[in-house]
Amino acid sequence: MSFSEATAVNSVEAGHEPGEARWSASIRPGWDIQGNANGGYLLAIGSRAVLAATGRPDIATITGHFLAPGPVGPMEIETSVVKQGKRFGTATAALKLPGGRTMLQVLGAATDLDGTTPIERVESQPPDLPDPDDCTPVEGRDDGFPPPFMNRIDLRLHPEDVFWSEGTSGRLQVRGWFRLREEEPIDSVALVQATDAFPPTAFSGRLPVAWVPTVELTVHVRARPVPGWLRCQFTTRFVTGGFLEEDGEIWDGTGRLVAQSRQLALVPRAD
Amino acid sequence: MSFSEATAVNSVEAGHEPGEARWSASIRPGWDIQGNANGGYLLAIGSRAVLAATGRPDIATITGHFLAPGPVGPMEIETSVVKQGKRFGTATAALKLPGGRTMLQVLGAATDLDGTTPIERVESQPPDLPDPDDCTPVEGRDDGFPPPFMNRIDLRLHPEDVFWSEGTSGRLQVRGWFRLREEEPIDSVALVQATDAFPPTAFSGRLPVAWVPTVELTVHVRARPVPGWLRCQFTTRFVTGGFLEEDGEIWDGTGRLVAQSRQLALVPRAD
Repeated sequence: MSFSEATAVNSVEAGHEPGEARWSASIRPGWDIQGNANGGYLLAIGSRAVLAATGRPDIATITGHFLAPGPVGPMEIETSVVKQGKRFGTATAALKLPGGRTMLQVLGAATDLDGTTPIERVESQPPDLPDPDDCTPVEGRDDGFPPPFMNRIDLRLHPEDVFWSEGTSGRLQVRGWFRLREEEPIDSVALVQATDAFPPTAFSGRLPVAWVPTVELTVHVRARPVPGWLRCQFTTRFVTGGFLEEDGEIWDGTGRLVAQSRQLALVPRAD
Repeated sequence: MSFSEATAVNSVEAGHEPGEARWSASIRPGWDIQGNANGGYLLAIGSRAVLAATGRPDIATITGHFLAPGPVGPMEIETSVVKQGKRFGTATAALKLPGGRTMLQVLGAATDLDGTTPIERVESQPPDLPDPDDCTPVEGRDDGFPPPFMNRIDLRLHPEDVFWSEGTSGRLQVRGWFRLREEEPIDSVALVQATDAFPPTAFSGRLPVAWVPTVELTVHVRARPVPGWLRCQFTTRFVTGGFLEEDGEIWDGTGRLVAQSRQLALVPRAD
């Protein structure tokens, strides 16, 4: 099943108020991690709902608050269009379990990323990475580690950032390559997935935590990428106050920044 | 009028559905910039609504989408609590003009920032700034530049980042000090204000634009600051695809990061 099929939303009906609508979607088997949806995958489904509700082709910016685990199976999505402007369509989306509990609350703006770039100034570089074939593939295993979800996408980690390896730098950083399987084209929704598909920086940084649950993830999409591998980098600078941020940058094969992300994650108490 | 009074929200009534409520608030004269609310001020009012709706003391993370200018005068706010969890209360808020048009759509999570910090690791430094008295105060003028809004807060700019001065570095960076007037204490809502109170980095960076309208602003609050000046830094690295990001860091007098922000702003076409 392609990423496009695994994140599809289908119209159910218009809502009671103007601008409101209901949609159906499913968390597909194999796209879960130990029974629950990967956060990026859940936000990708929410992104499809925002695109469908606003009738625009590309995500410009999307924010998701993660409120409950997303088990494999069907969901209902309620969308509400807040504004249809000239350049952006803005909408909320609530991804709900069959019983009505909200797994993910979304606020996003969709647009047409037509490539107009009036002024360009970039004061940063794409991450320096070995070729994909010289990086470490992350392949899912039936015993759950790495999770089979990793076989739905194609990830290659910078050897210094492989947290289960002896040679890890210990820095709060993860770099690597991302693409979809079978050369499926990457749209803005797949970029959203790419911002939350890599192992957490907390692991390569050797924080004494088993997991870092995402509170909030925001993705800004700057451009549609050209086909091929995406060059990705995730960095954490502040582990403080019981939280950490994870900042992502995604670059395409032309060396252009195509998306930027930041997530706020909880640092569980070690006790 | 204090910042606390200028951002107050008052209960109007419960909404039709459980968890929904309506509130009144006002954009106060003098808190506008040429007739319309400063973005940080508008998101601060939205933050008060999220706190009131969830019954929690501190903003943890808040995202606002700016959809229409906010003129001086009354507004109505509709809130909807999405989840009341153990640690976070999550809510949406729509700040609406009397005619019903939404100025600002908000999604936020509130909490009790009780100071528990299980694991700390900070790989960054607060910005190096001259003492507040050796920085450049930004004082509002009746002719509109700088806007009188600047007299509601107390800003001191790093001399290298004063965009109207000959000595500006030309970097896409603004550093300086922030506090409220008359030693008003700074809560998480005032931190939200501080993340969008300084002149845009686009000005000190000499981009050929007259303004950079905010599409989306997200603020993460890590801790309640100690009283006194806040040390602030705003940086832009990517002006591309017709957008720029502005990343903010706010540190208190103990050298602790208390808030982090990112906004996505439009780069208008120069024609």
